[in-house]
Amino acid sequence: MSRVDERLDEMERTVVREVPDDITITDVAFEGPELVIYTQDPRAFAERGDLVRHLASELRKRITVRPDPAALDPPREAESDVQAVIPDDAGVTDLDFHQDTGEVIIEAEKPGMVIGSRGSTLREITSATGWTPEVVRTPPIESATVSNVRDFLMQEREDRRDILERVGRQIHREEMSDDQWVRITTLGCCREVGRASFILSTPETRVLIDCGDKPGAEDEVPYLQVPEALGSGASSIDAVVLTHAHLDHSALVPLLFKYGYDGPIYTTEPSRDLMGLLSLDYLDVAAKEGRTPPYDSEMVREAIKHTIPIEYGNVTDIAPDIKLTLHNAGHILGSSIAHFHIGNGRYNVAFSGDIHYSDTRLFNGAVNEFPRVETLVLESTYGGRNDYQTDQEDSERELKKVINRTIERDGKVLIPAFAVGRAQELMLVLEEAMREGDIPEVPVHLDGMMWEATAIHTTYPEYLRDELQERIFHDDTNPFLADQFNHIDGGEEERQEVADGGPAIVLSTSGMVNGGPIMSWLEHIAPDPDSTLTFVGYQAQGTLGRRIQNGRDEIPVGNSNGRGRQNTVALNMDVETVDGFSGHADRQGLENFVKTMNPRPEKVLCVHGDESSVQDLSSALYHDYNMRTFAPKNLETFRFV
Amino acid sequence: MSRVDERLDEMERTVVREVPDDITITDVAFEGPELVIYTQDPRAFAERGDLVRHLASELRKRITVRPDPAALDPPREAESDVQAVIPDDAGVTDLDFHQDTGEVIIEAEKPGMVIGSRGSTLREITSATGWTPEVVRTPPIESATVSNVRDFLMQEREDRRDILERVGRQIHREEMSDDQWVRITTLGCCREVGRASFILSTPETRVLIDCGDKPGAEDEVPYLQVPEALGSGASSIDAVVLTHAHLDHSALVPLLFKYGYDGPIYTTEPSRDLMGLLSLDYLDVAAKEGRTPPYDSEMVREAIKHTIPIEYGNVTDIAPDIKLTLHNAGHILGSSIAHFHIGNGRYNVAFSGDIHYSDTRLFNGAVNEFPRVETLVLESTYGGRNDYQTDQEDSERELKKVINRTIERDGKVLIPAFAVGRAQELMLVLEEAMREGDIPEVPVHLDGMMWEATAIHTTYPEYLRDELQERIFHDDTNPFLADQFNHIDGGEEERQEVADGGPAIVLSTSGMVNGGPIMSWLEHIAPDPDSTLTFVGYQAQGTLGRRIQNGRDEIPVGNSNGRGRQNTVALNMDVETVDGFSGHADRQGLENFVKTMNPRPEKVLCVHGDESSVQDLSSALYHDYNMRTFAPKNLETFRFV
Ligand SMILES: [Zn+2]
Ligand SMILES: [Zn+2]
Ligand SMILES: [Zn+2]
Ligand SMILES: [Zn+2]
Ligand SMILES: [Zn+2]
Repeated sequence: MSRVDERLDEMERTVVREVPDDITITDVAFEGPELVIYTQDPRAFAERGDLVRHLASELRKRITVRPDPAALDPPREAESDVQAVIPDDAGVTDLDFHQDTGEVIIEAEKPGMVIGSRGSTLREITSATGWTPEVVRTPPIESATVSNVRDFLMQEREDRRDILERVGRQIHREEMSDDQWVRITTLGCCREVGRASFILSTPETRVLIDCGDKPGAEDEVPYLQVPEALGSGASSIDAVVLTHAHLDHSALVPLLFKYGYDGPIYTTEPSRDLMGLLSLDYLDVAAKEGRTPPYDSEMVREAIKHTIPIEYGNVTDIAPDIKLTLHNAGHILGSSIAHFHIGNGRYNVAFSGDIHYSDTRLFNGAVNEFPRVETLVLESTYGGRNDYQTDQEDSERELKKVINRTIERDGKVLIPAFAVGRAQELMLVLEEAMREGDIPEVPVHLDGMMWEATAIHTTYPEYLRDELQERIFHDDTNPFLADQFNHIDGGEEERQEVADGGPAIVLSTSGMVNGGPIMSWLEHIAPDPDSTLTFVGYQAQGTLGRRIQNGRDEIPVGNSNGRGRQNTVALNMDVETVDGFSGHADRQGLENFVKTMNPRPEKVLCVHGDESSVQDLSSALYHDYNMRTFAPKNLETFRFV
Repeated sequence: MSRVDERLDEMERTVVREVPDDITITDVAFEGPELVIYTQDPRAFAERGDLVRHLASELRKRITVRPDPAALDPPREAESDVQAVIPDDAGVTDLDFHQDTGEVIIEAEKPGMVIGSRGSTLREITSATGWTPEVVRTPPIESATVSNVRDFLMQEREDRRDILERVGRQIHREEMSDDQWVRITTLGCCREVGRASFILSTPETRVLIDCGDKPGAEDEVPYLQVPEALGSGASSIDAVVLTHAHLDHSALVPLLFKYGYDGPIYTTEPSRDLMGLLSLDYLDVAAKEGRTPPYDSEMVREAIKHTIPIEYGNVTDIAPDIKLTLHNAGHILGSSIAHFHIGNGRYNVAFSGDIHYSDTRLFNGAVNEFPRVETLVLESTYGGRNDYQTDQEDSERELKKVINRTIERDGKVLIPAFAVGRAQELMLVLEEAMREGDIPEVPVHLDGMMWEATAIHTTYPEYLRDELQERIFHDDTNPFLADQFNHIDGGEEERQEVADGGPAIVLSTSGMVNGGPIMSWLEHIAPDPDSTLTFVGYQAQGTLGRRIQNGRDEIPVGNSNGRGRQNTVALNMDVETVDGFSGHADRQGLENFVKTMNPRPEKVLCVHGDESSVQDLSSALYHDYNMRTFAPKNLETFRFV
């Protein structure tokens, strides 16, 4: 009998001992990091409200109880019983009964009312019907991504069960090595912005953290082919952790499955959906630009199927010797700092991902309290000695000035923005500014995937700031539903109309002006000296955005495809940069994050920044806070412990 | 047609173009790093003295010419012709004709006379017989190792030809990667002495440098199992380079073949023979101590069969993008600094191996002039801030005092020494001291493999200092043949006799008193307060030698095998440490090596020393010479370029 089976046996004995005699346990099994208990008496289980919590603390595992099929009411009968238990105000929009797992998926506008105080309504459902309820929110704004992901996961339910069982056995396998060490290998985003990818390894376990592309340098991908990465096969990786869905962290995660990876991806639920949205778009863009995408949409589906969503703050076993906890990073929806607790506390490492330290309109600032952290891997996008950004309040004032000035002369304000994060932050700024009369009520056009991304934000309000959550729950106060906002869904024709029309604000992807609908907008508006091109986010080296900031006054148009000469239009617009809206902490924010971090880490690896930014930040943290700091190169391995 | 075959074709065309019409070329082939030209007219080839040199510079390859079998005189006939050409004084002791390669192996006491001025005699042999002569020296002292290795290689000639052809094709394969980087991965001997092992890697090539054991900690072996080492299979390594034969660098080289390695080992010829001697002894010792050796003697033979010997200063292609040159390291017979010239000069790395910077009686000091070096990996055995050793002259005076004092009171001088290097240096000191009357002429007993090691030294006088070479060539001046020296070949009985007898000097392995015949000597002599135990070499942490230096006054005796209590005898001898005989540069020597190094490297990795030694040396080199210095841990990877 394998060690895993022994362990399961032992857990089953504990469960049988701890539950009252009237509850029959038929099986226990690992499913991903959780323990699933099968019972013939789901109702009795549900009626003892504290039993699951008691077992969880006894077994030190998250626990799911599943009914034996025999114990279930038939779906038709159960459906009315479920409806009867849930308050009408909950706004149930869908019920799905899964005979194989005994689960009923309840989609509701107000999931909290389906759950009840401390889960009381859920337990009522089970005791009335035998079924195990799982609740999801009805998106306040319809999202094709969210419904596609949900439909897909339902359809792949059996496959997914197999994956989770296999992952569960892997997580709970026996530790093999007496050796003790902890290492970080850098596969990308060192002394550069883009292609974030790291391996955290112990003698037991190898975890890949992020796997992104490099905007403006599509051929520079993480060094996956080296022996210490996937050189000996993708199955040498035990787990993938995704800090957030931006393509410079996520774009090549699906590629791992093409290479034969078959393990779990740990990330937040919104990051999973955004990864789906952004990586499908990434394939689209590649195809449009005549590049062969490195994988196809089937691999995106594999990635989604292998994702095990975890919530902020939940400590999760991902290997025999590693516990993972994700913490809010304040950067985009679902973005997280990944904290690894290794070898029963032998060592603790936090990967910042991308962070914003202070609160924004959308998000609370990044968490910087941890039980323990010896080494911090810290983004340094704005780590340079002069990378101090304006306060957001001042930035908003500045942006409003730019808008007023432009609208006064009948121009248009064109803002390149990431679909995810900056766009929503700006929507909140613009909505308030118009509501309070600081700027005129002109149409705000959202192009690219912004509308869809916004819909996903409203699906996961738990990940937004409290005040904002509350507003989203009510259609009449949901800022994203304000009248000014127009989703560009009519393509070139609609763009032409807007360009020919009166004053307006246009938010369009890509955020760094390297492809996407922003190129069309520039083709229409670039020659107009009354309009303003307004940068509000970081422009990476090699992108057209950076070149425009540096003075370039021509925009390539049409599809040159490398054949013939590229046509251009003159860029006569005002070009303004309003900083302070970045999703990234500025130099001050990064220092504050480290200075107030609790506990203060011993070592900091400065990554995800231009060469001078990582060097500046590394030397500042060393001198000001007396920590051991490093500015790694790609392809290096650092050993701790 | 593969790139290698294309290249061979091109080379064949060049050869055909360059040789006169009366020479028929039948084939060209790669054999390891060399190019072999097959011809029907070996005599005509030999008669044009400059032709081979001309082709070598034209093709930028070392060249061997081989006759077609048809062009050969029958061996019997050839034998008398060969004998006729070679002067009688050359002292030919053996002739071996190999029909398959057309080679005749000539063993002679004076190889120089067989070679003749600029190879004139060799060419005469070929023009007389068609055969290609290969000359080896008849060991002035009979060496079982040397003759075993030579016999074995002759017997495995065909296999070896296959290996060399395969290696040759590997070396001349097409470069695959556009990427450019150079990395060093540390697999052992970082912040410790022992288990030396590194990987030098480029996108194209992975070279393993050394693979040793750790004296006093037999279970601590190089981290071969990690993905960036042999994790994806031993065949992921393209070449092994051995700096010298000491077990802390060589012991686990044969293990690589058990793991499936099938590529070349580059090292000097004496290092190959010493590796054979020492690793077979390593297996013996393991067996005697009841440990299961990690491999058997078959693997030692594989290692010898896969060795491609190279001489100091010869620039050798070992991969499409790497040239290797070995330089004298002054440490032991055949010891070398391995210099890697990477990617057409993109980067140059030198691994010091173990070095002695100043001249000793045996060897010239380490070379520290190179065409280019950006990074130096430097041994730091005596890198500590107080690791200044006495000058050898003073040390010799001190040693003579210890000897005189001990002999005056009728005691014995027991000196633990490495069989290879220190033993021979001491033999030279003692021989001279007795010859000059500085110490009485008492017997000097050599136990362990010292006698055999000495024989190997005399087989390769080119690797010794000039004056010493000259003396070795004449039996009456060969210092190693002095009357006082007695090879202990009678085992325990002979030791008992010596112990019961009058004043004497005993040199015995192991050098760190962790096993070997020194244990018997101590069992006999330890209780005698008139005798002196004299340390003349570095005692690693964890060895009994170090513990005795730290005051331990008991010696374990008998074979406890872990069962029952270990018997001990009291150590009543004088314990003296006479430093200055070390095969390692002391702190001053290390600094001098770096200070006068030409060119001065940009970066130095300090390895092969206790934690404090590497830290001290690293910080001294940083402060005094303003270089970037590192004290790596095991399992780290540094990237250059
Ligand atoms: Zn990001
Ligand atoms: Zn990023
Ligand atoms: Zn050595
Ligand atoms: Zn050594
Ligand atoms: Zn060199």
